[in-house]
Amino acid sequence: MCGIVGMIGNSPVNQDIYDALLLLQHRGQDSTGMATAEASGHLHLFRARGQVREVVRTRDMRALPGAVGLGHVRYATRGAASSEEEQQPFYVNSPYGITLVHNGNLTNTRELTDELRNRDRRHVNSSSDTELLLNVLASELQDTTGPTDLTTDGIFNAVAATHRRIDGAYAVVAIIAHHGLLAFRDPFGIRPLVLGRRRPTPQQLEEHPDAHDEWVVASESLVLENGNYELVREVAPGEAVFITADGKLYSRQCAEHPVLEPCSFEYVYLARPDSVMNGISVYDSRLRMGARLARTIAEHMPVEDVDVVMPIPDSARPAAMEVARVLDIEYREGFFKNRYVGRTFIMPGQAVRKKSVRQKLNAMSTEFSGKHVLLVDDSIVRGTTSSQIIEMARAAGARKVTFASAAPPIRYPHVYGINIPTESELIAAGRTIPEICELLGADHLIYQEVEDLEAAILDGQTDQKLDGLDLSCFTGEYVTGTVTQEYLDWVAEAQES
Amino acid sequence: MCGIVGMIGNSPVNQDIYDALLLLQHRGQDSTGMATAEASGHLHLFRARGQVREVVRTRDMRALPGAVGLGHVRYATRGAASSEEEQQPFYVNSPYGITLVHNGNLTNTRELTDELRNRDRRHVNSSSDTELLLNVLASELQDTTGPTDLTTDGIFNAVAATHRRIDGAYAVVAIIAHHGLLAFRDPFGIRPLVLGRRRPTPQQLEEHPDAHDEWVVASESLVLENGNYELVREVAPGEAVFITADGKLYSRQCAEHPVLEPCSFEYVYLARPDSVMNGISVYDSRLRMGARLARTIAEHMPVEDVDVVMPIPDSARPAAMEVARVLDIEYREGFFKNRYVGRTFIMPGQAVRKKSVRQKLNAMSTEFSGKHVLLVDDSIVRGTTSSQIIEMARAAGARKVTFASAAPPIRYPHVYGINIPTESELIAAGRTIPEICELLGADHLIYQEVEDLEAAILDGQTDQKLDGLDLSCFTGEYVTGTVTQEYLDWVAEAQES
Amino acid sequence: MCGIVGMIGNSPVNQDIYDALLLLQHRGQDSTGMATAEASGHLHLFRARGQVREVVRTRDMRALPGAVGLGHVRYATRGAASSEEEQQPFYVNSPYGITLVHNGNLTNTRELTDELRNRDRRHVNSSSDTELLLNVLASELQDTTGPTDLTTDGIFNAVAATHRRIDGAYAVVAIIAHHGLLAFRDPFGIRPLVLGRRRPTPQQLEEHPDAHDEWVVASESLVLENGNYELVREVAPGEAVFITADGKLYSRQCAEHPVLEPCSFEYVYLARPDSVMNGISVYDSRLRMGARLARTIAEHMPVEDVDVVMPIPDSARPAAMEVARVLDIEYREGFFKNRYVGRTFIMPGQAVRKKSVRQKLNAMSTEFSGKHVLLVDDSIVRGTTSSQIIEMARAAGARKVTFASAAPPIRYPHVYGINIPTESELIAAGRTIPEICELLGADHLIYQEVEDLEAAILDGQTDQKLDGLDLSCFTGEYVTGTVTQEYLDWVAEAQES
Amino acid sequence: MCGIVGMIGNSPVNQDIYDALLLLQHRGQDSTGMATAEASGHLHLFRARGQVREVVRTRDMRALPGAVGLGHVRYATRGAASSEEEQQPFYVNSPYGITLVHNGNLTNTRELTDELRNRDRRHVNSSSDTELLLNVLASELQDTTGPTDLTTDGIFNAVAATHRRIDGAYAVVAIIAHHGLLAFRDPFGIRPLVLGRRRPTPQQLEEHPDAHDEWVVASESLVLENGNYELVREVAPGEAVFITADGKLYSRQCAEHPVLEPCSFEYVYLARPDSVMNGISVYDSRLRMGARLARTIAEHMPVEDVDVVMPIPDSARPAAMEVARVLDIEYREGFFKNRYVGRTFIMPGQAVRKKSVRQKLNAMSTEFSGKHVLLVDDSIVRGTTSSQIIEMARAAGARKVTFASAAPPIRYPHVYGINIPTESELIAAGRTIPEICELLGADHLIYQEVEDLEAAILDGQTDQKLDGLDLSCFTGEYVTGTVTQEYLDWVAEAQES
Repeated sequence: MCGIVGMIGNSPVNQDIYDALLLLQHRGQDSTGMATAEASGHLHLFRARGQVREVVRTRDMRALPGAVGLGHVRYATRGAASSEEEQQPFYVNSPYGITLVHNGNLTNTRELTDELRNRDRRHVNSSSDTELLLNVLASELQDTTGPTDLTTDGIFNAVAATHRRIDGAYAVVAIIAHHGLLAFRDPFGIRPLVLGRRRPTPQQLEEHPDAHDEWVVASESLVLENGNYELVREVAPGEAVFITADGKLYSRQCAEHPVLEPCSFEYVYLARPDSVMNGISVYDSRLRMGARLARTIAEHMPVEDVDVVMPIPDSARPAAMEVARVLDIEYREGFFKNRYVGRTFIMPGQAVRKKSVRQKLNAMSTEFSGKHVLLVDDSIVRGTTSSQIIEMARAAGARKVTFASAAPPIRYPHVYGINIPTESELIAAGRTIPEICELLGADHLIYQEVEDLEAAILDGQTDQKLDGLDLSCFTGEYVTGTVTQEYLDWVAEAQES
Repeated sequence: MCGIVGMIGNSPVNQDIYDALLLLQHRGQDSTGMATAEASGHLHLFRARGQVREVVRTRDMRALPGAVGLGHVRYATRGAASSEEEQQPFYVNSPYGITLVHNGNLTNTRELTDELRNRDRRHVNSSSDTELLLNVLASELQDTTGPTDLTTDGIFNAVAATHRRIDGAYAVVAIIAHHGLLAFRDPFGIRPLVLGRRRPTPQQLEEHPDAHDEWVVASESLVLENGNYELVREVAPGEAVFITADGKLYSRQCAEHPVLEPCSFEYVYLARPDSVMNGISVYDSRLRMGARLARTIAEHMPVEDVDVVMPIPDSARPAAMEVARVLDIEYREGFFKNRYVGRTFIMPGQAVRKKSVRQKLNAMSTEFSGKHVLLVDDSIVRGTTSSQIIEMARAAGARKVTFASAAPPIRYPHVYGINIPTESELIAAGRTIPEICELLGADHLIYQEVEDLEAAILDGQTDQKLDGLDLSCFTGEYVTGTVTQEYLDWVAEAQES
Repeated sequence: MCGIVGMIGNSPVNQDIYDALLLLQHRGQDSTGMATAEASGHLHLFRARGQVREVVRTRDMRALPGAVGLGHVRYATRGAASSEEEQQPFYVNSPYGITLVHNGNLTNTRELTDELRNRDRRHVNSSSDTELLLNVLASELQDTTGPTDLTTDGIFNAVAATHRRIDGAYAVVAIIAHHGLLAFRDPFGIRPLVLGRRRPTPQQLEEHPDAHDEWVVASESLVLENGNYELVREVAPGEAVFITADGKLYSRQCAEHPVLEPCSFEYVYLARPDSVMNGISVYDSRLRMGARLARTIAEHMPVEDVDVVMPIPDSARPAAMEVARVLDIEYREGFFKNRYVGRTFIMPGQAVRKKSVRQKLNAMSTEFSGKHVLLVDDSIVRGTTSSQIIEMARAAGARKVTFASAAPPIRYPHVYGINIPTESELIAAGRTIPEICELLGADHLIYQEVEDLEAAILDGQTDQKLDGLDLSCFTGEYVTGTVTQEYLDWVAEAQES
Repeated sequence: MCGIVGMIGNSPVNQDIYDALLLLQHRGQDSTGMATAEASGHLHLFRARGQVREVVRTRDMRALPGAVGLGHVRYATRGAASSEEEQQPFYVNSPYGITLVHNGNLTNTRELTDELRNRDRRHVNSSSDTELLLNVLASELQDTTGPTDLTTDGIFNAVAATHRRIDGAYAVVAIIAHHGLLAFRDPFGIRPLVLGRRRPTPQQLEEHPDAHDEWVVASESLVLENGNYELVREVAPGEAVFITADGKLYSRQCAEHPVLEPCSFEYVYLARPDSVMNGISVYDSRLRMGARLARTIAEHMPVEDVDVVMPIPDSARPAAMEVARVLDIEYREGFFKNRYVGRTFIMPGQAVRKKSVRQKLNAMSTEFSGKHVLLVDDSIVRGTTSSQIIEMARAAGARKVTFASAAPPIRYPHVYGINIPTESELIAAGRTIPEICELLGADHLIYQEVEDLEAAILDGQTDQKLDGLDLSCFTGEYVTGTVTQEYLDWVAEAQES
């Protein structure tokens, strides 16, 4: 889970990159990275642990001059959080000087590590797949361009070769020093990347007659909206876009058989509701998830016994509102969410305390007392939070607790860049719904059907048609077709050690 | 706007103070302060700018040993944010060694400054009224106790003398080195302060036979709830509570004519909904505000034209839900709130940008398109945010926008510790409701009636009876009776310079 | 071992204080402190661990406005280095607001601690004798001045009372907010304090007709010399000097029986050679120590066998040069001193290494090979360094090694502010010179005679006459007359624990 | 002016690198750099501004695991001090992963910059010649090795090619990840580099039977001495040494016409006196400089009038002692040097102060009063310090001041890595000695003859024979033969801008 952005402007972009990262912060809070390039080719990098507004100081911003830039927010997978060497952006100086950020996850890292070391003689100094990706791209750029200067064709050939060598999900933004900004997306379009443009105003042209179009690529469309960029389109699956420092855009389809099968989890949980992704409004798709979930609920239990529908804040709100509307049950918010809770200090000599959900959520007994409450969450992963919430609802006086998930049971690992734990930790892996219901301590448990989730998302298609969705964590079918059980076992083992 | 806490435990309290401050963070995010006392009398202070989880490091916690402690979160009034010398807790070493935190605002600071310097020979090194308050208390302790050792009576006499000398609103927690924890509240009970106890469990007594009761005083009851303290009661207006290091509690009414007329703004906006304050549930009072507001709305406009009721997140949610229920109109959440937005960097050579509400709120067009929306906010202060929200609703496709405020028009300054600007900046000061409506650009504007606000709060009284409420910012009548127009002019001038 | 300075200027003094502390840095490298006062009475404090140029940042300097200021460099005694609460300057706000720095050591701290707590009701929050001293002074100021404003007589009465209450060595500089700069010295003049003045130039008076005399008090005269202040005189033993913000100086003898018996160790080791202290040039006194030592050497050994005289750099250079001149033996520098060595990191899992003198000193074999070398050091404390140096000389080829100390055997603790270890660690305590010589591994060992040290210093007297010297660490006779064996045992125990 | 070190050990080398940098600190105090490599190939870098003991924290040391390491201390040339991007070590990840440090200066940087960008497609992100050097080496390694694994021959071929491409002075240490430590020296041996070995002790072999020889390369021999390494030899001019992680050493002469003509300034000023460089003791060479200078002095002035010989501390001490001995004049130290002086803060609104030599040096009037003093310094560069010193001597009472320089007049820029300013700032450039004498304000001025400096150094040759010395800043003849007037003009212009 990461957010990325790249920009080419008429003036320094550091402030715009900063603002964009604030808007993408929900995609990762563990580290912040930025890079800018000056017209002289000089690159400037910034990397730090923590959220944007906590770690970026004025002097850091001053050290990021240049009208070409990129940024990254990162959600660290376990264990890796502490290492500075895993932080993006990564940089190689040969060839050309390239700095790169990446959202996604590669699934053939073992092969790439071997190739890079033994064939390409490139040193990879971290366990980050992003460093591998950058070096594959660099290696292909080196091979395809040779002693003549870099051409746009050369760049696109290198991206094509990179597509052939790497497996997995990836949306990428890179700066090639002296040349421009490169962005591309995996041939399945698993992770999002959207393209925007800001034309110079007549007033700007009067002051700077050579002002050119300004461009942005970003994980989510709200970055465009907030910066007053017009939405040009999504970067297509497999496509590469290259923008020169003077604002000229080139693009080419670099994959052989591109299809658009984006990750369904963006709609379920990750993306901000005010984003439009692959032409589909995230907010509207969540409303439709609620509507379909309502029907499933009605099929499985006597809804007339339910007194009130409540969301688990914040992401389940749209679905819960729609559940309430369709079932014609009152909608209330009975849980208050504390925004300020963070890590808890454990002082030497004091007992370790169980970090409870209660620090983050509090139940208003007025809303629960004597009622049958229907709680709606976006999804259920480990189940530990859900069971504590159910317990809180009962403690607050609920007569009965029904729990509904806007996503189907999560039974398989997610290998495309969403931080979902290994199979052994998933409450739904290898269990029936009644078994899960009992474990959670709910009176009823209703899950969205896989077909309904699919339809809830795809029903929002506009002129842009999707070829499908990645629903792998619900179905075990991985769109890239290269994920084996042996790989999943290796990942599980690596994460547990 | 500040939050305070004090604790006496059987073991180090630093971690509990830290956890309590996280829960009070909504009362102030500008600076964080803590102090602890060891049995040896040694005091340890920590002060830093910023939120608790951003600024407190493990080594800071290690430097706060001791089973007696207090904490503070602060909302800086303008200009003062930058000064370390304004940060709480304050400390004086004579007499006894006292460290003190304060929530509220004193209104006779000019007189106190003169007295302390010229009569009491005490140096006040900041412009903080808290430093004045501490020195008045210290000076009275010095005078009343003399060369004999400090007695509980001596302490209470000093608090009584302090009540006589200071005007305004104040809830106070202090540590007197070698002696214990002192807490008191102004004679009108304007600012909240609640008392809790945690008795040692049989198991704890087995391990530590001399374990005593543990005590907490805090701005809000949720600190007690979260720490598993039983609610003993509110500290009464004018009352002082003194707890020795071995857990013995003494208390005395130290004011001559105490009345309970707490600040209504705690219920309107400041307090967390899951707090119970002066026996009244904040959440329930907000529901009642919504119910009463609904009736006022129905009196003033044709509600059948309204398609949907929407809250301005987060604090208006309970009122809005109840407006929707009473008027039987659909409740929807059409605004998404960005949690991560902070200050924006302005780089040299770039134009200053207007910091727009749009960075913090975004409207989902699905919910607005073609509809008459009834927006509910907790209150309207300057009106700039409200008018931008109304504009956003229209841009998102709203057919008509009605704006309703759960609080009456704010027409007067707040002098008791809520950060409300001077009269000249208040949109409602000197304007009729139609005039305000036009300025905001709404189709209809409905305010809560003052009587309804009062009733909405007071209807929640339990066994604890209130003598009234401070409604001064709505009515211009200040409960302490010592606020003159000359004072208000002086404050306005000081803030503007 | 500390250095102090105080200043009153016509313009901000922060930069001058900073420069003065750089010049006093040899008196203490463990922490740095500064304070300034504005005309408004506002005090600003800075305290940090480490050397001046390492820890003071531009923003710290900006936060120290005001034309009245003081500064402190500190040599931490063992264990105390880590505590921020021990750092000077200390501050009390009652009465008046006083901030104070101190060079020296009090010997009745146990009594003072009791009195302050039980009689004066003052909290002392550290184990620093400076905090005690400040509170005694504050307490006396409070008692003597009462409700009328502070007068110069009141201040001097308080200093007189302070003299009566405290025992030991102390040179003190304090700022009394709104009033001015106070400096005083113990009744024996054990620690140094010198007074300087800078009259406004005609040019300055033209620009600022109200420019007044600028004043400085400092531990050493070189601060005056470097800042172009004229030397007015030493602050006399027992005398207090008070300077108002507008440059008027008042002074009074506040002790009953003042005598001038300064610490001989300033001349032996602590002071910079370019200082003049109590009218006696430190450099010249070291030359005389060398001359007298030469004669003692000649009495005790056949000097014609010695090939070369060498100093242990840096402080023994003047004495060694004079030894060489008087004995007519060649002077050479065979040891090179590394200026950059500091603490050594010990990594986990690696053996602890003996921190050898060799990292700091290196011997040039050319100068040692086949020679009988006469090594001259300023003094011998523990003897560990000396024995390693002797070993290095032999390893470098020396035929014979004679070791001479410009100071007599150190056999007793130093209780007046020089950091000399407890008796049990002193190589000379309870040993004869032949025994020490054998322990050190020298061929000959010659110590200065106590009478010669005394004469070497006193022979430099000018118009200012001394009543004697504190030679206590050589003789066991303490000038203040209040140091008992019970006290020494208590100190030794406290230091060892 | 830089110091470098590289090590291969049996256990982590971070602490040894740290200790070595402390010993090389005199070669540069502006920034500190370290790198280590783990057996896994993982590289760890540390870079910071400031001296070793000021900037390296325990956590930095913990982040430098691995038994292969290198280090660097740097003297920043003007303007460059502020840039983090100029700090060593530099790193490239292709091919192999190389990190490199460098002492010296390249003189064909303009050609290299062009070649690297246009032919080798390598991005150089700083203005550092070290980054150029690393990229030339990397580019040659890439070309010579191709798709097969790196061999020792491949490495030496790449060094040979690097020699052919770069001009100037360079001593280099690099780590090639997974492979080992590489060190080489320019074909003229201008900058020093010495090789040491530490064989495992029998005891170590007992514990770790596979313990291998440990190796060090360093700028100065004292690093070996201090770490108990035996001196193997100097790295020869043009030679490359490659040491594998398991302690096997390979070496090859990689230059076509190597000669040994080291920089004379190491002996004059830069190196520590306790170093032996190219077989010549630095200390002894300085004694010989003194002896020869004495004879020149005697030829040019009546030495019987001179009362005393004094060094300008610290580096001129050996020469001055020998001048005194040969001329049979008393040797005295009349100047005291302050070790703690650093930058001075200039506060806004205050006049900039002339930073005087007096803050660093102070004259003892006893030693000057009425005397004809012969001051000896190692060299005269700009002359500003010398003239201030002469003024101080006169102010301290000197009757006459003779100034003698152990080095000849510096009339030309130094292009091989010693920080000597451009010609226009050199007091001796284009001036006769009488003219310089007048400018300095001395009564007599005597310079060493160039032949005497040469002989003073070369007379120390042992079995290792030198082909000459670089004396370019005295003679204008540059040993590399590629320094043109056009280049010198370009450098002067670049430095002045």
